[in-house]
Amino acid sequence: MYGIILAGGSGSRLWPMSRELYPKQLLNIQNHESLLQATYKRLADFIPDSNIIASTGVKHVANVKSQLMKNSEKIKVLSEPLSKNTAPAIAVAVKNILSKNGDDVVLVVPSDHLIKDTGKFETTVNKGEKLANLGYIVTFGVQPSYPETGYGYINISDTQLEDGYKVSRFVEKPDYELAQKYVKSGKYFWNAGIFMFKASVFLDELKKHSPEIYTILEKFDFTNSDEIPYIDYEHMPNISVDYAVMEKSDKIALVKLESDWNDLGSWASIYDTEKKDENGNAFVGHVIDLDSKNSLVYSSSKLCATIGLEDTVLVETEDAVLACKKDRTQDVKKIYDILKRQNDNTHLIHKTVYRPWGFYTVLTQGDGFLTKMIQVNTGQKLSVQSHNYRSEHWVVLSGTAKVVLEGKDYILSPGNSIDIPLKAIHSLQNPYNEPLKIIEVQLGDPLIEEDIIRYEDMYGRV
Amino acid sequence: MYGIILAGGSGSRLWPMSRELYPKQLLNIQNHESLLQATYKRLADFIPDSNIIASTGVKHVANVKSQLMKNSEKIKVLSEPLSKNTAPAIAVAVKNILSKNGDDVVLVVPSDHLIKDTGKFETTVNKGEKLANLGYIVTFGVQPSYPETGYGYINISDTQLEDGYKVSRFVEKPDYELAQKYVKSGKYFWNAGIFMFKASVFLDELKKHSPEIYTILEKFDFTNSDEIPYIDYEHMPNISVDYAVMEKSDKIALVKLESDWNDLGSWASIYDTEKKDENGNAFVGHVIDLDSKNSLVYSSSKLCATIGLEDTVLVETEDAVLACKKDRTQDVKKIYDILKRQNDNTHLIHKTVYRPWGFYTVLTQGDGFLTKMIQVNTGQKLSVQSHNYRSEHWVVLSGTAKVVLEGKDYILSPGNSIDIPLKAIHSLQNPYNEPLKIIEVQLGDPLIEEDIIRYEDMYGRV
Repeated sequence: MYGIILAGGSGSRLWPMSRELYPKQLLNIQNHESLLQATYKRLADFIPDSNIIASTGVKHVANVKSQLMKNSEKIKVLSEPLSKNTAPAIAVAVKNILSKNGDDVVLVVPSDHLIKDTGKFETTVNKGEKLANLGYIVTFGVQPSYPETGYGYINISDTQLEDGYKVSRFVEKPDYELAQKYVKSGKYFWNAGIFMFKASVFLDELKKHSPEIYTILEKFDFTNSDEIPYIDYEHMPNISVDYAVMEKSDKIALVKLESDWNDLGSWASIYDTEKKDENGNAFVGHVIDLDSKNSLVYSSSKLCATIGLEDTVLVETEDAVLACKKDRTQDVKKIYDILKRQNDNTHLIHKTVYRPWGFYTVLTQGDGFLTKMIQVNTGQKLSVQSHNYRSEHWVVLSGTAKVVLEGKDYILSPGNSIDIPLKAIHSLQNPYNEPLKIIEVQLGDPLIEEDIIRYEDMYGRV
Repeated sequence: MYGIILAGGSGSRLWPMSRELYPKQLLNIQNHESLLQATYKRLADFIPDSNIIASTGVKHVANVKSQLMKNSEKIKVLSEPLSKNTAPAIAVAVKNILSKNGDDVVLVVPSDHLIKDTGKFETTVNKGEKLANLGYIVTFGVQPSYPETGYGYINISDTQLEDGYKVSRFVEKPDYELAQKYVKSGKYFWNAGIFMFKASVFLDELKKHSPEIYTILEKFDFTNSDEIPYIDYEHMPNISVDYAVMEKSDKIALVKLESDWNDLGSWASIYDTEKKDENGNAFVGHVIDLDSKNSLVYSSSKLCATIGLEDTVLVETEDAVLACKKDRTQDVKKIYDILKRQNDNTHLIHKTVYRPWGFYTVLTQGDGFLTKMIQVNTGQKLSVQSHNYRSEHWVVLSGTAKVVLEGKDYILSPGNSIDIPLKAIHSLQNPYNEPLKIIEVQLGDPLIEEDIIRYEDMYGRV
């Protein structure tokens, strides 16, 4: 069996925790591992690492790789040069599998959902595998527990199969009244976006129902490279797999997802998955509360004090605070869109920015200066680089730094400092067993991330 | 005329904006100047600077002085060695006036109230002055506009004076029913804590009604020094001027305060004084809102996004967030008290700590290191000092630093850095016309503020 993990989402509805450049699937929510890592582990129970492909966009590829590499070095990460929704992403990954290996069953899963009962998930997958081997495109349906208007529904037909149902149609997000009818009927399931099929069956159906995707796909040759050509991918239609294949094919079967499932699609669904106290409150982080009810307080860095809140969500991050009525959490996306329109970076990046080598946090900035705290993880190295518009001054806080400046090596211990002049070629490395923390003072104008000339990079960013 | 500004309050109800070491009167609320500075300006319209005394506690004296010095160098600041409520504070200031000058009318005002109409305030003072000269102790009463249960009330008698009323009694904070009766009667006023009297009259009444204060006061000799002896002050009763004199004397008159007045005693009263939009919202700082109503959002450093809030107060500071139903803002004091009990510094100091020479902000701290951004204002100098447990590394961000290290002078420009070894005697000074900003990296254990040995200090802190 093969596994495709879709890891390209932008997660705007969980702002300010998720950001365009560090979305939901990369975050540790309720766990010591990210949703992406948890998704990998769920598949790894029954799919060999070398059969797992993660598909993501060029913006996230470094972070997706560095997270997955912590679990296994065998997972392949495909990088989409442009974001084109799920149909092209799945098509490319399926073609990649067929090019390198034989035809077999493929399981496609989102990377940002929460499923705790991995045993029942595997039982469901086993049922799906049987149907996929019979030539069905299988979708996993979640039995609806209430009339949710934020999900698409799948209508099963009366034709029962051994382990599932034939699907009669896919329906868009319904209004409340319709959703109530769907739930009552017992014939409708939530669309969880999890699919199984034989690779060849999927491509046949794609050819039949979305020839415009298939035609472009035919140009790709993955026999010697995993690279997706930008020029052709640009012409791919931006379309979901539901529209491109599922809603049109008559080979669709549904298997009921037997495990728990939560798409963590809003702060209200995060609330649903958290443990509550006797007043229905979920508090995460440093929270002091008096008399609140049915509220979620999510503190990531600072003290949050709450008094008398009801049905409210409060989320605190290093650079933004969200306070929202719990029944309005779908509108967080509107805030995200406003920020994007205003070119406010708060939608794009966190105050702490993750890089393949570690992370940095901007501490303070002003006219002509900018200060960062930089952590370089064990064994990592920043690119060999120079800057045209800034000089830098580094002070080691903890750990040991190996600095190469204009060809000369320096080993710096806590308290040691070094000046990096304008245009000097330099690199910063941590070849030691302890994380390296340094303070970087930048002086110059303009002070922008883009002022980097890279000469060498162990993460392929030159 | 003389003026006494009471500047000793702790302002726990405006947490997290106010902190024990930087309370309400020192904050810029709705203004480019602090409430203390606005209070000084209000008096300075009709009282000469050299006749104004600010009374504060030893914890706040440096900040009170440095704020008032920006307005005038002639204002005297008295420093109470211990906090003993208003009766001892006023008694000491009155005695100080009588020791140095003659007997005259004294106006006593809190430093943390908001009065915008200074013209009408002066009119009220003029009326009070007449009554004070007739031997009355005058209190300014605020005509109640609703049955507030958080204030004390003053009951006027039927004896009308030319510019006021004789007072029949002071009453404690009433319950709601009683407050309603008070408001309806027209015979009750809110106690605004503003008083006027002849210095000699006040001391006579103090001697009569609170001899335990008067006896200790007699030991103080202010002819050659303004210092309040700790040993005697320790024995002062901790008592308000209302209890000590007002409620007992039969010489009390009330003049109706004709100006606007707000004691800014809670976030709800801050809301009352702010301008509202058409939905009754007051937004301060960087706020993006969707559909909130009758809410106050007070952002001091970060983006606050709010959706669908009603009657809610959200306050964001560098190290704490408060979200509170507007009718529960009195309970902010309970949060403050919890933090104090837990020895959580969030009740005590801001992330940015003000000093006579400028301020510092802790940027990041970890095992064995601590980083600060330090601003030294023009013409200021930190004490000549050394540290037993830490070395320091300074990098200039902007401005120019004069550093003296082990007797040797260094002039440092942006990007320049210097190492201050363990136990080395050093000082940091900004004799130039631009604020000096530096990054300080401390290395050592323990890294505590108290690890300072001071040799010289221009603010008398040796």
